[in-house]
Amino acid sequence: KINGDRLWDSLMEMAKIGPGIAGGNNRQTLTDDDATGRALFQEWCEAAGMTMGVDTMGNMFATRAGEDPEALPVYVGSHLDTQPTGGKYDGVLGVLGGLEAIRTMNDLGIKTKHPIVVTNWTNEEGTRFAPAMLASGVFAGKHTQDWAYDRVDAEGKRFGDELARIGWVGDEEVGARKMHAMFELHIEQGPILEAENKDIGVVTHGQGLRWIECTVTGKESHTGSTPMSMRKNAGRGLALITELVHEIAMKNQPNAVGAIGHIDVYPNSRNIIPGKVVFTVDMRTHLLDKLNAMADELMEKAPKLCEEIGVEFSCEIVGQFNPPAFDETLVGSIRDAAERLGYSHMDIVSGAGHDACWINDVAPTAMIMCPCVDGLSHNEAEEISKEWAAAGTDVLMHAVLETAEI
Amino acid sequence: KINGDRLWDSLMEMAKIGPGIAGGNNRQTLTDDDATGRALFQEWCEAAGMTMGVDTMGNMFATRAGEDPEALPVYVGSHLDTQPTGGKYDGVLGVLGGLEAIRTMNDLGIKTKHPIVVTNWTNEEGTRFAPAMLASGVFAGKHTQDWAYDRVDAEGKRFGDELARIGWVGDEEVGARKMHAMFELHIEQGPILEAENKDIGVVTHGQGLRWIECTVTGKESHTGSTPMSMRKNAGRGLALITELVHEIAMKNQPNAVGAIGHIDVYPNSRNIIPGKVVFTVDMRTHLLDKLNAMADELMEKAPKLCEEIGVEFSCEIVGQFNPPAFDETLVGSIRDAAERLGYSHMDIVSGAGHDACWINDVAPTAMIMCPCVDGLSHNEAEEISKEWAAAGTDVLMHAVLETAEI
Ligand SMILES: NC(=O)NCCC(=O)O
Ligand SMILES: NC(=O)NCCC(=O)O
Repeated sequence: KINGDRLWDSLMEMAKIGPGIAGGNNRQTLTDDDATGRALFQEWCEAAGMTMGVDTMGNMFATRAGEDPEALPVYVGSHLDTQPTGGKYDGVLGVLGGLEAIRTMNDLGIKTKHPIVVTNWTNEEGTRFAPAMLASGVFAGKHTQDWAYDRVDAEGKRFGDELARIGWVGDEEVGARKMHAMFELHIEQGPILEAENKDIGVVTHGQGLRWIECTVTGKESHTGSTPMSMRKNAGRGLALITELVHEIAMKNQPNAVGAIGHIDVYPNSRNIIPGKVVFTVDMRTHLLDKLNAMADELMEKAPKLCEEIGVEFSCEIVGQFNPPAFDETLVGSIRDAAERLGYSHMDIVSGAGHDACWINDVAPTAMIMCPCVDGLSHNEAEEISKEWAAAGTDVLMHAVLETAEI
Repeated sequence: KINGDRLWDSLMEMAKIGPGIAGGNNRQTLTDDDATGRALFQEWCEAAGMTMGVDTMGNMFATRAGEDPEALPVYVGSHLDTQPTGGKYDGVLGVLGGLEAIRTMNDLGIKTKHPIVVTNWTNEEGTRFAPAMLASGVFAGKHTQDWAYDRVDAEGKRFGDELARIGWVGDEEVGARKMHAMFELHIEQGPILEAENKDIGVVTHGQGLRWIECTVTGKESHTGSTPMSMRKNAGRGLALITELVHEIAMKNQPNAVGAIGHIDVYPNSRNIIPGKVVFTVDMRTHLLDKLNAMADELMEKAPKLCEEIGVEFSCEIVGQFNPPAFDETLVGSIRDAAERLGYSHMDIVSGAGHDACWINDVAPTAMIMCPCVDGLSHNEAEEISKEWAAAGTDVLMHAVLETAEI
């Protein structure tokens, strides 16, 4: 078993870097705080006898040597960057859980045939530089590095420039590493495990995602002096599509979800009828056909609903990934480890996107989830128990050891 | 008849002060540009033989003496301040139309029994310092001056301090002036007159207004990893209430209107289900009972709709005025003048609030409207024709002359 207290201490130590304003963290990617967190992680890895490699996207790879020089490494990891108002565990648990597994192996003198590499993927969150999971996406060949370097933040700063500024452009070519397997431990970011009272989520699939940015165009006019019959209220288009998205998700149960999280109203004044509303529909499910059908239904029905109320509809897909099915052997090793260690567990679909979802396209991959209080994440109040963190990390270590061969 | 070219030249001259970025104006209340505009208006008034009085709210009163020293003055006017992206005519036409009427009387050597006072009311727009029609509201006893002075703009600057800074705190007590009558000429800010092909709107009533600020509270959670059955999507509350407001307005036709113009979504991120949405419902009609019933229906049904989808509703009335019925004699004098002068006209209800709506509570008051292109207002593209401006000002002058007695 891993050392739950040591893991917790490291989580709390990392959380001191880039503290938030309400008990969580603001350690966004490629900030000075990100650099400080990276340096601490490197120091810890080296103290645990690992050697650090860094690629040109800033992805960090700390290697614990294996006994067979020919064997491909087993990767474990997640991300150290946080949301602007993020929690202490989203991402961090997967990186420091990997480190704790290595420390425990060191304590117990365990050697493995395959090397083990603890990884910190750059910019998983995507809030400073969209999209999310940027550097694992480049690693998996989903984006080119040039394109990634050209992403800009709200102040117009380039990803490539900021990576150089904080001093974390490595010399390794991105994606050149070959993997025997990759494991990611992550908090669920949802309420299911806690509601079902399970210690461990064995992630069999991820959901696919479509982000559809919609623009409803009506006519800006005075709320008082424009008769009802002469209005083109773009806000009504938003209202009808909000309910349409809900209906589409509901009729594709179980597992399908859909909502509108981001809404911009123009000109957004109390006495002006909205002339334009721009909003993004987020639709997900773990079955590709269903996901495509959901997006098609939206794009077929939304323009008709808008036409009926005299407003115009247009849309653009601004984010998408197809549902990953994780490697059955690795998933089995996670389920077996949880069973063997006596942790309650259930199979689960990852609702959120993770670095593992991209890596799954280029190497056998699997994910372990642990519960989080009230399903809360992307929030400074995000919380997990020390026991949950330890259970997840235990299962991670055992699955890794089975895969890396003792 | 008034001199339409001279009126138009003055409108264009005033529009040079505080130009917008798209052909309109940004001459917000109590800015340096407002001060420049006020000084120009004063210069023009003095050149036309009038004497300027200013009260402690910065309201400007330019008096053309009457023949009977005992007779109360007839007031004409509107406001020179604009929206941040406002037009060249909203408000300005009513002030410079009043001035043009005086210039014409001077040209023709017309004398009146009652003095005539051309007025510029401070802060009609209310975008910099809410609420709208602030200084006419203090004049009419709707607000205290202390309360008005304490209004702050987005930068935290106080109305009272800014009025002093631009040098327009006058020495007259607000509301001390007694009025024989008050006329306001204003662009319609709606599409009816243009659609009906009428030169003149004879305003019989104004609409009453209720601004109801609603807060729907759900639970902020991840759009991907929160199952549909566990969501509390505040955005759906907004959607249902958007349609409820529309239905309530539709079943109170004719004349009733309702919409939501201002919406703030929290935290407004693509992959976070809205935990809170704050928005303002704007409901209006010219019948007080109907208006109250509309607001009551909203406040009764909205909480139920929200309860059904598991979110909470609360609301607060943040703006209200009851429907004014303008003085029948003055309204008649406007209708007669339009008829006599051969302008096409129709009775109309003012959809928007105006200074005249407050003054109507303390003096016999009436309004004249002229069409505006496409009903567009509160927009830099706001446009009227020189002929419409002249027709409205002709009718204004004739109604004023009848009331001020030649
Ligand atoms: N884990 C996570 O929140 N990733 C961001 C992309 C998503 O919305 O799923
Ligand atoms: N004229 C005008 O737009 N006044 C502002 C108050 C309102 O919304 O009616």
